[in-house]
Amino acid sequence: MPKFIDHKKRKIQIAEATWRVIVEEGLEHATVRKIAAAAGLSVGSLRHYFASQSELFLFSMELVSERVKQRIEAKNYEGSSKDMLTTFICEFLPVDEERRIEMEVWFVFSAKTLVDPKLSSLSEKVYNEMHEGLATVIYSLPSNRFANDNLDLETEVDRLHTLVDGLALHHMLHPSAFPYDKMIRTLQYHLQSICKM
Amino acid sequence: MPKFIDHKKRKIQIAEATWRVIVEEGLEHATVRKIAAAAGLSVGSLRHYFASQSELFLFSMELVSERVKQRIEAKNYEGSSKDMLTTFICEFLPVDEERRIEMEVWFVFSAKTLVDPKLSSLSEKVYNEMHEGLATVIYSLPSNRFANDNLDLETEVDRLHTLVDGLALHHMLHPSAFPYDKMIRTLQYHLQSICKM
Repeated sequence: MPKFIDHKKRKIQIAEATWRVIVEEGLEHATVRKIAAAAGLSVGSLRHYFASQSELFLFSMELVSERVKQRIEAKNYEGSSKDMLTTFICEFLPVDEERRIEMEVWFVFSAKTLVDPKLSSLSEKVYNEMHEGLATVIYSLPSNRFANDNLDLETEVDRLHTLVDGLALHHMLHPSAFPYDKMIRTLQYHLQSICKM
Repeated sequence: MPKFIDHKKRKIQIAEATWRVIVEEGLEHATVRKIAAAAGLSVGSLRHYFASQSELFLFSMELVSERVKQRIEAKNYEGSSKDMLTTFICEFLPVDEERRIEMEVWFVFSAKTLVDPKLSSLSEKVYNEMHEGLATVIYSLPSNRFANDNLDLETEVDRLHTLVDGLALHHMLHPSAFPYDKMIRTLQYHLQSICKM
């Protein structure tokens, strides 16, 4: 295997170990020492891949958005407008264990963006990409598929984007009060109010 | 002033100092030493009011929900259904500096609820109270005020609750991409889709 591929692969393994430590113990316990141990490396070896904790955190947060993007590109979008939107949006919701871990990591890093300019600038970029993605899907729907003629599409994109993040947040933080079924039902209900097919 | 009032007042001052440290430096830097300094107290004096950092954090998170509740109870709810809902919901949105600080603190603590059972149980309680509050307002609207007869009120409450938290999150994390005006416009647009007056 060429060396640079091995290097990238090892960085990803370390980032995944970072996710595990964050999900199990919280961000304030995600020290370089603990992450190295979780990745089965010495602190010295970890430093070879990431010069600082800040660099490691940035890469670990970015990996979440990379994973989401890879899955979105690999998907087939078929069926009604509602089905296509659901397929797309489910990549941003904690619908299974894999996505739940990613969302938790993203959420924990998001709280840190309030005081960390590097993470904040990544978060801004990904926010805009997701917004663009939703806008592209909404604007590409044939006009006869909309539930009515009075929809303000720009505001519909804002409403859908905020709703999707609210759904993810509620199911992640309150899985008993807001279980999977409620999350999906609320999404379907909302999409039904926008698209008639 | 009776002693127990003074005691409560001092606890609130310490909690407000905790908010400031969290908003300015992040939760992982909110040590007891730093908070004591921000409150103008010695660590020993702070320990007199809060035996542990965990107790202090719980009180500081709870103070956010107390403030929101106090304001909700003090408000007058007048005008159309849309106006009443807007007045109520704005207490859960970062519409000014005071509420922005509260929301940031709540958000940062929410990330910690994922690994902290005490904060998580407070968060669950407040989540249910807010849900109940929104449900009470929606269910109390006269049926002739709804935009149409096909609304599923239970799901409307879920949709409104997730949307409101999504709006707060987006404006707090991305104030340039999602400024105050967009937040309010999206809320008004959504309420318009539920209530015809």
